[in-house]
Amino acid sequence: MKDSSIETFLEELASHAATPGGGSAAAIMGAMGAALISMVCNLTIGKKKYAEVEDEMKAVLEKSESLRVALTGMIADDVMAFDQVMGAYGMPKETDEEKEARSEALQAALKTATDVPLRCCKVSREVIDLAQLVSDKGNLNVISDAGVAVLAGNAALRSAALNVLTNAKMIKDKDFAQAKLKELEELLSGAEAATEGAYGVVEGKLS
Amino acid sequence: MKDSSIETFLEELASHAATPGGGSAAAIMGAMGAALISMVCNLTIGKKKYAEVEDEMKAVLEKSESLRVALTGMIADDVMAFDQVMGAYGMPKETDEEKEARSEALQAALKTATDVPLRCCKVSREVIDLAQLVSDKGNLNVISDAGVAVLAGNAALRSAALNVLTNAKMIKDKDFAQAKLKELEELLSGAEAATEGAYGVVEGKLS
Repeated sequence: MKDSSIETFLEELASHAATPGGGSAAAIMGAMGAALISMVCNLTIGKKKYAEVEDEMKAVLEKSESLRVALTGMIADDVMAFDQVMGAYGMPKETDEEKEARSEALQAALKTATDVPLRCCKVSREVIDLAQLVSDKGNLNVISDAGVAVLAGNAALRSAALNVLTNAKMIKDKDFAQAKLKELEELLSGAEAATEGAYGVVEGKLS
Repeated sequence: MKDSSIETFLEELASHAATPGGGSAAAIMGAMGAALISMVCNLTIGKKKYAEVEDEMKAVLEKSESLRVALTGMIADDVMAFDQVMGAYGMPKETDEEKEARSEALQAALKTATDVPLRCCKVSREVIDLAQLVSDKGNLNVISDAGVAVLAGNAALRSAALNVLTNAKMIKDKDFAQAKLKELEELLSGAEAATEGAYGVVEGKLS
């Protein structure tokens, strides 16, 4: 997936095939957010004017690069999780045994398909928090890129959240589903304010 | 650019090279938004349950596909516009004649570098409006993708807006700059409400 060209990916996204879908798009948005944080760090580190924040920017860069790699991997993870759900739906359901096997496979697949976007939410929230930092302290010449990073991270978080909701509500293990929805709620909490705060800082620097 | 792999693009985005940057990321977000609208349309058209909205979905699909193509083209346009600005900055500035030629080239480049993201804003706003429509009427099985589409469109709009601000403020032709900023303001007006409205509709359908 990550090896396909951007144009091919966009064509496949638009097609009537169910994958890739919004989950992969969310992971790409998050990965672009992380990448832009790295870019701002890379263009801040080594500049005399920003010597004071150099160590901090190096630490941010290390973190943002690991977030970028994690989110890049999630582009394909989402497709695999969805295919697993579809595979379970396609299992035979004539006999009672078949019905039970199908239901078990489906429930297991739905748990994975809840965990995958929840991981995307978690990492995207970290993108938002790091973007806030580079919006404050990054090189002013590329500060708009810090603003794009925070918007991309927030869109990724809220996009992946929709997939968590979609799959969690079909899970019969209510304790599992509730725990995941609670975790989601915590990840969403304060994200919007952090995003608007960082975006406002960037806008202020540009005007 | 659009032919490079997603992984390569993300690596280049993260690097200390100034391009690709946030402008290309904005165009990709917009293109993903348009693509997801097309996907929802493709999975709504031909379904008995949605026969009533079939003609409308076909019209939306035609429009979203043209937006997708336009935004895909803007991934590279942004890089070219930025390179033109950098090229002008690099021109000699020893003699008065050189200074004047450099200033003229720079001002022309800045006008292009304002127009390109403004076009991205315009098309992304159309993505938001179309996403609102498919959030209301699209196939319920893929309604989360309509939610991702509207978030991607809005992130694209607000990201490209930062590049308009960045470049417009360096333009000496104040009438030109003011006209562009006014156009930007109109494109942003109501976009947030439309986005939150559509996202709320999707969330409501998922819970």
